[in-house]
Amino acid sequence: MRKEWVKGRAGVVTQLHYARKGKMTEEMAFVAKREKLPPELVQNEVARGRMIIPANVHHTNLEPMAIGIAASCKINANIGNSAVSSGSDEEVRKLKTAVKLGADTVMDLSTGKNIDSIREAILAASPVPIGTVPIYQAIEQVKKPTDLTADDLLGVIEHQARQGVDYVTVHCGILRAFLPMTVKRITGIVSRGGALMAQWMLHHEKENPLYTNFDRLLDICRAHDLSLSLGDSLRPGSLADASDEAQFAELKVLGELTKRAWEKDVQVMIEGPGHVPMDQIAMNMEKERELCHEAPFYVLGPLVTDIAPGYDHITSAIGAALAGWNGASMLCYVTPKEHLGLPDEEDVRQGVIAYKIAAHAADVARHRLGARDRDDSLSRARYAFDWNRQFALSLDPERAREMHDETLPQEGFKTAEFCSMCGPKFCSMHVDQEVREAVARDEAKQAEKNREKLKEMTAGA
Amino acid sequence: MRKEWVKGRAGVVTQLHYARKGKMTEEMAFVAKREKLPPELVQNEVARGRMIIPANVHHTNLEPMAIGIAASCKINANIGNSAVSSGSDEEVRKLKTAVKLGADTVMDLSTGKNIDSIREAILAASPVPIGTVPIYQAIEQVKKPTDLTADDLLGVIEHQARQGVDYVTVHCGILRAFLPMTVKRITGIVSRGGALMAQWMLHHEKENPLYTNFDRLLDICRAHDLSLSLGDSLRPGSLADASDEAQFAELKVLGELTKRAWEKDVQVMIEGPGHVPMDQIAMNMEKERELCHEAPFYVLGPLVTDIAPGYDHITSAIGAALAGWNGASMLCYVTPKEHLGLPDEEDVRQGVIAYKIAAHAADVARHRLGARDRDDSLSRARYAFDWNRQFALSLDPERAREMHDETLPQEGFKTAEFCSMCGPKFCSMHVDQEVREAVARDEAKQAEKNREKLKEMTAGA
Repeated sequence: MRKEWVKGRAGVVTQLHYARKGKMTEEMAFVAKREKLPPELVQNEVARGRMIIPANVHHTNLEPMAIGIAASCKINANIGNSAVSSGSDEEVRKLKTAVKLGADTVMDLSTGKNIDSIREAILAASPVPIGTVPIYQAIEQVKKPTDLTADDLLGVIEHQARQGVDYVTVHCGILRAFLPMTVKRITGIVSRGGALMAQWMLHHEKENPLYTNFDRLLDICRAHDLSLSLGDSLRPGSLADASDEAQFAELKVLGELTKRAWEKDVQVMIEGPGHVPMDQIAMNMEKERELCHEAPFYVLGPLVTDIAPGYDHITSAIGAALAGWNGASMLCYVTPKEHLGLPDEEDVRQGVIAYKIAAHAADVARHRLGARDRDDSLSRARYAFDWNRQFALSLDPERAREMHDETLPQEGFKTAEFCSMCGPKFCSMHVDQEVREAVARDEAKQAEKNREKLKEMTAGA
Repeated sequence: MRKEWVKGRAGVVTQLHYARKGKMTEEMAFVAKREKLPPELVQNEVARGRMIIPANVHHTNLEPMAIGIAASCKINANIGNSAVSSGSDEEVRKLKTAVKLGADTVMDLSTGKNIDSIREAILAASPVPIGTVPIYQAIEQVKKPTDLTADDLLGVIEHQARQGVDYVTVHCGILRAFLPMTVKRITGIVSRGGALMAQWMLHHEKENPLYTNFDRLLDICRAHDLSLSLGDSLRPGSLADASDEAQFAELKVLGELTKRAWEKDVQVMIEGPGHVPMDQIAMNMEKERELCHEAPFYVLGPLVTDIAPGYDHITSAIGAALAGWNGASMLCYVTPKEHLGLPDEEDVRQGVIAYKIAAHAADVARHRLGARDRDDSLSRARYAFDWNRQFALSLDPERAREMHDETLPQEGFKTAEFCSMCGPKFCSMHVDQEVREAVARDEAKQAEKNREKLKEMTAGA
């Protein structure tokens, strides 16, 4: 459908540009319907920079979506191979799994061979916005990371923009002056792109080329509607490093760059931590709003403990739920394999569901209109022992059914008034339905008594 | 060791009794050491009722632990069979898995056959306090739940007290007057014991026998130091039912019963919900403190969404972390099988780790002394690429190692400066170590320049 929409567009083609000119694009109208929001509100939020619609004009099979505080909380799933493992088919399978389970955007973080053809296959198969980290490809094209030039980097970004990538993580905010702030950290710089930029700056004794060439970057973005995801190169990689000088120094620069991007009609979101103790999460959300002028905040977790490798989807879903409740617009998932290895398809599944939970819990806690409807429907089905409907309303219907069927697989049990957890005699919901009837009888009895008493009193009067 | 400790004790043998008399029991001293707290503080907190040490005098292989706001946040794992599945060997295996992974207490919720021998086997094997829900056994001994008498119930409780059970969930706070408050709920009464008590009251048109016989119950408790876990029969079973009139009406009664228990030197904790949206959790913790006089709060999750069957350990770990941060003293785990079937050993593992994460995140957020030490050590090992130490410091070392080894099993990779997630070229930690050296060189160079400049200036002066 988007082929028609984008046909006549030329020059500056960003949603921000159109919104500011008062044009209601098909993308805005589409998003408004999905979000059950008035189209004018979507247009206003996009114009204000508080909402983005990552929608490269070349990604025509995209079904547009919105990221911003007025929209429901979104989640991103990272896929992509590394030099050590995986190929194109497997990455497309991961994409499909992620989208099927509800990922709102997908980032292709491939760093290995065939990076270009993997991206092409993913874009062709994806109805959701695709994000990338272009420095990963740029690095593959040079011998040493320090051989990179600004032209190399911008060349790769432009190439990917033409391919149809919807948003790119760019590490523009890490400046030379900030590097000494990281040396006393426990885990230093944990952003891959950030570490590479740091290495480059120290080697060349020059400022960050993406910072000094930011205007050239913006020119690429506005020509294709490539959205910027301003990377937090100095995000904390451990609880101890959270909310430090380095992190906030970079965040301030991201705020300045946001304003410059908006001046050129380029859509922007801001990336956030990482590893943050629970009691610092609300403060981090507030700080971003303040320093980055309410540009949508896109956070990675954060993990609320460092001691759970193998279960970091859970550790980080706790932080993500808190972040979403406190105003983050998109939550980047973390899989059980984080810190241990490249996620496979099952890891993608675990990560996506953990984050669907976090985002939904955030929507419920923010009292978004209708956010709790699905919970209420599922709970009604639960009380009615309608097992098939419970499965259908679940975030992962297949897994829910599998688990139920482990002990009671026969179809007859799909209407049974119990499951194997309590067995028939101890099912509280079953007993409660008898309680409900008894309460009704009790009340009827009481009403009868009252009627008789009233009659007596009237007779006596 | 406890055999010696309890030898001379007779009459009222509760820790609360001793604490009030100014006696420092071996249990208090033991707990103080575990918690790294001054023994006097433990004694004072126990005397105040703000901390309990569930330690039945007959459970002599117990290693005492404490539940209360001054202690670290604890977790409980539920095991136990149902009429539909599982036996004694499997339940002892689940116990061992739970304890090995760090469950602080274990509840045996068996409701099927051989309930007595399963409990005996569990107690004999358990170094952690064992809790039960005695009504499950009482019910097995009668034809219909409504045949139960107060004597039956108290008889079973006394029997279990003599066996060595450390704490019991008793549904004393659900009163007849509260039942009509539940009929408009989506999920009614979801506590198994609560639903049975409701059924009993409606059938007999009488008040809750555990409420009317509460003093007899206290007499049993003080003779064996059986701690009470006052059950929340009217806890919400869905987001929609959270924080309603019924829930808080019962909570108020639990507060009254707490005072009566304290008068008789009986240790008490209060059970809490269930299903609660994130934005109501802090309020629920506050309400309990107020209505129940700061008796330790022992919460079940709570789940922050209803739509994740198959992943309720995650949904509820989010709520549990928030609850712990806001003052809950113990978190009752929920496994992935919740709402679907009886948990097996792998479900126990998933549940325990999810809750270890939640409790630890709460301790970190509360700034408990030393709470973050293990996180910092693991993060240092991570930065140093000491994979074996990372595994050792993990909550589940075996699982962490398995996941790492899926792609890089060879022992050589245990010191490799990368994993399969990013591969050798893209490991930020690896690059960062070069950054650190370069920053140091830069700073040395700058210092040298400054020295020269100073020399020039001094020479010129």
